[in-house]
Amino acid sequence: MSRRARAKGPSEAALADAREALRRCDVLAGLSSMEGGIERVYLSPEHAGANAQVAEWVAAAGMRAWQDQAGNARGSYPGTDADAPVLLLGSHLDTVPDAGRYDGILGVMIALAVVGRLHAHGVRLPFGIEVLGFADEEGVRFGRTLLGSCAVAGAFEEEWLELADADGVTMREAFTAFGLDPDRVTEAALDPSGVIGYLEAHIEQGPLLLDANRPLGVVSGIMGAKRFDLVMEGQAGHAGGVPMLHRRDALLGAAETALAVEQVALTEGVVGTVGEMRVEPGAANVIPGRAEFSLDVRAASDAQRDGAWERIRAHAVEAAGRRRLQFTETLRHVARATSSERRLSEAVEHGILAVTGEREAMELQSKAGHDAMAIASLTPYAMLFVRNGNGGVSHHPDEIVTVEDVALAIDAFEAAVLSIAHRQGAATVA
Amino acid sequence: MSRRARAKGPSEAALADAREALRRCDVLAGLSSMEGGIERVYLSPEHAGANAQVAEWVAAAGMRAWQDQAGNARGSYPGTDADAPVLLLGSHLDTVPDAGRYDGILGVMIALAVVGRLHAHGVRLPFGIEVLGFADEEGVRFGRTLLGSCAVAGAFEEEWLELADADGVTMREAFTAFGLDPDRVTEAALDPSGVIGYLEAHIEQGPLLLDANRPLGVVSGIMGAKRFDLVMEGQAGHAGGVPMLHRRDALLGAAETALAVEQVALTEGVVGTVGEMRVEPGAANVIPGRAEFSLDVRAASDAQRDGAWERIRAHAVEAAGRRRLQFTETLRHVARATSSERRLSEAVEHGILAVTGEREAMELQSKAGHDAMAIASLTPYAMLFVRNGNGGVSHHPDEIVTVEDVALAIDAFEAAVLSIAHRQGAATVA
Repeated sequence: MSRRARAKGPSEAALADAREALRRCDVLAGLSSMEGGIERVYLSPEHAGANAQVAEWVAAAGMRAWQDQAGNARGSYPGTDADAPVLLLGSHLDTVPDAGRYDGILGVMIALAVVGRLHAHGVRLPFGIEVLGFADEEGVRFGRTLLGSCAVAGAFEEEWLELADADGVTMREAFTAFGLDPDRVTEAALDPSGVIGYLEAHIEQGPLLLDANRPLGVVSGIMGAKRFDLVMEGQAGHAGGVPMLHRRDALLGAAETALAVEQVALTEGVVGTVGEMRVEPGAANVIPGRAEFSLDVRAASDAQRDGAWERIRAHAVEAAGRRRLQFTETLRHVARATSSERRLSEAVEHGILAVTGEREAMELQSKAGHDAMAIASLTPYAMLFVRNGNGGVSHHPDEIVTVEDVALAIDAFEAAVLSIAHRQGAATVA
Repeated sequence: MSRRARAKGPSEAALADAREALRRCDVLAGLSSMEGGIERVYLSPEHAGANAQVAEWVAAAGMRAWQDQAGNARGSYPGTDADAPVLLLGSHLDTVPDAGRYDGILGVMIALAVVGRLHAHGVRLPFGIEVLGFADEEGVRFGRTLLGSCAVAGAFEEEWLELADADGVTMREAFTAFGLDPDRVTEAALDPSGVIGYLEAHIEQGPLLLDANRPLGVVSGIMGAKRFDLVMEGQAGHAGGVPMLHRRDALLGAAETALAVEQVALTEGVVGTVGEMRVEPGAANVIPGRAEFSLDVRAASDAQRDGAWERIRAHAVEAAGRRRLQFTETLRHVARATSSERRLSEAVEHGILAVTGEREAMELQSKAGHDAMAIASLTPYAMLFVRNGNGGVSHHPDEIVTVEDVALAIDAFEAAVLSIAHRQGAATVA
């Protein structure tokens, strides 16, 4: 017996909302520092432009729009009672270099569409809604992820202000240049007692919904991740003159480590990636004296993640010893594995079942990090994944979604919000 | 029986000349575009500064100083007959990034010291001498080596003017910015009929003289080299979301190729280096979609070099196929293996024996390329190698020479020049 009933299609109204959400993703894709591609990093002119644009859409959805002291774009939609706690809806507005146009952005646009519907029908809920367009999730500029959501969660650490970007500009300087006072960043934080939960919609950054032929999924939790800056240091020398066995080639030590990452990930069932690699001096006729590279490792549990890292490190240390290189590691980022909250997830599942006609929603564990990880320290969360139409391609311009899937996602997200409202007391039409 | 007699020491006068040559290397090391290190590339402000400085030293050695239409620093010292052909002495003045201070530079300073001695003693030879400070040997800026010596050899190809540097500036534009007319570059060429040969002194870019405890060596020939730009193209994707077995990680294909280069070099007795490696998009949480890397392969014969490349290529193609990557190669540079000329080499050997008291000079094959390779198409060459005091470290700031070895090198180089003069007819004291 099939676990799914016959799929329902989205309504015409939902398709119109989805088309508008996708049009908005296209508009934001144009706010890019990269010619011919999308790149929008924290505290950049493109970030300011995106916030200004989002503020217009926030206002159009009947919300008060503002930018907080961390540079997040925010909007608030009051509940029936002005003092009622708030439900948070959001995702992030920044991107990786040469990004797709939906990662993060789509979740903010879905949240705006849902509030826009409530506003259009004059609906007030027993809680307020706050929409959050986080200013930094990817961590591209300063090498530290989730800056925007950490600020909202009250977990922004003052020392991060001293981190510098590739041009040597510190975050503190970038705050000032952006028009923000770095000493007021703590004002972005919410009081946990005034928040009932956080819902985030996000494009799936993998192929599982596509492979399963499902438009939507509910997220059970987010994998634990660690990110390292790794260095192999050897000795530069002439590419002709230095005999092969005299060499201390830093790149070859890094290459062995990158291949060991793959091997350990496959055998331990974790995910590992070397995404950055730079060699110095970096000329065709000079043996690399130094290789700097990144490692990102993720696993369903923190213990599994740390075990995999220990095995990778052992490979790197062995290669460095054999090649007379010096290996150093700097831990740049830690994310604990988190679980979504059961009752909020039930609301998301309810939304999925209501719009797809499925009997059971597909449950996914997110290998990618999300703002929900940071918000988890403030309030419980649940997440809705939207099918990625291009084989799970992510962090890449080929990322796509269909209008139909986005329409279903808006309907499901709205149903999830109303389900939470239903538990808290009926919604009110003003 | 020892092949070497007891070593003679250099004279006080030679030590003084050596100290001055090393002081001049220090002066040129200060003309650098790199903070805290040495980098001086073709047609840069530092190149202009070096030429102006060298012109002063050329004039001080009794020569007419000029800069040719390719930007080479040149000086001429007439022979007894104004129409006499010329013997060329020289090396290059440009550097790799974060270079040592002797590679190339020392050879020009030794040539200047020798002519300075002739001038100081009023000696005229039956041939003129031309000292050449080549403007580009390393090829750092435009990815094409030996630009200065090719221009002198009449082998500069007009299409090279369209090559662009990392900032997109074409060589043609750089010529103009430097104050040179790119359409007159052919005027730098010498007429082969007016040239009797080329001698070059150079620091050894390997450890063989040091290991053998010899200060100087004579070069039998220069290895054949090929240099390639290689690309692995896969697909970028999210470092968490894309399962390991779905990936098309370009860096891993490049890493396997770099390790195959080492393996093939060791088994085939050639030299192979991956000196450049860049990945895109280049973020810690993005799977590399593209890896661009260089390959430099050198061997004693062109056939051995090409055989090694075929084996390396087979490894790269196999890895690319298995990983669903696209592998492409661009041949960027070819240098045929060349041999030094017997009679000129005998003159260099004569010089070495005269100053070291050795019974037989150590003969070396150069794995590094030299201006002599380009000049070989104009006139026969011979080369003198000076011991590298730091384990053969080259293309690196730790490259060192001793005052004593440089003094011996100046004496030997002078003796080589006088030996050639002796064969052509006696020198004349004016």
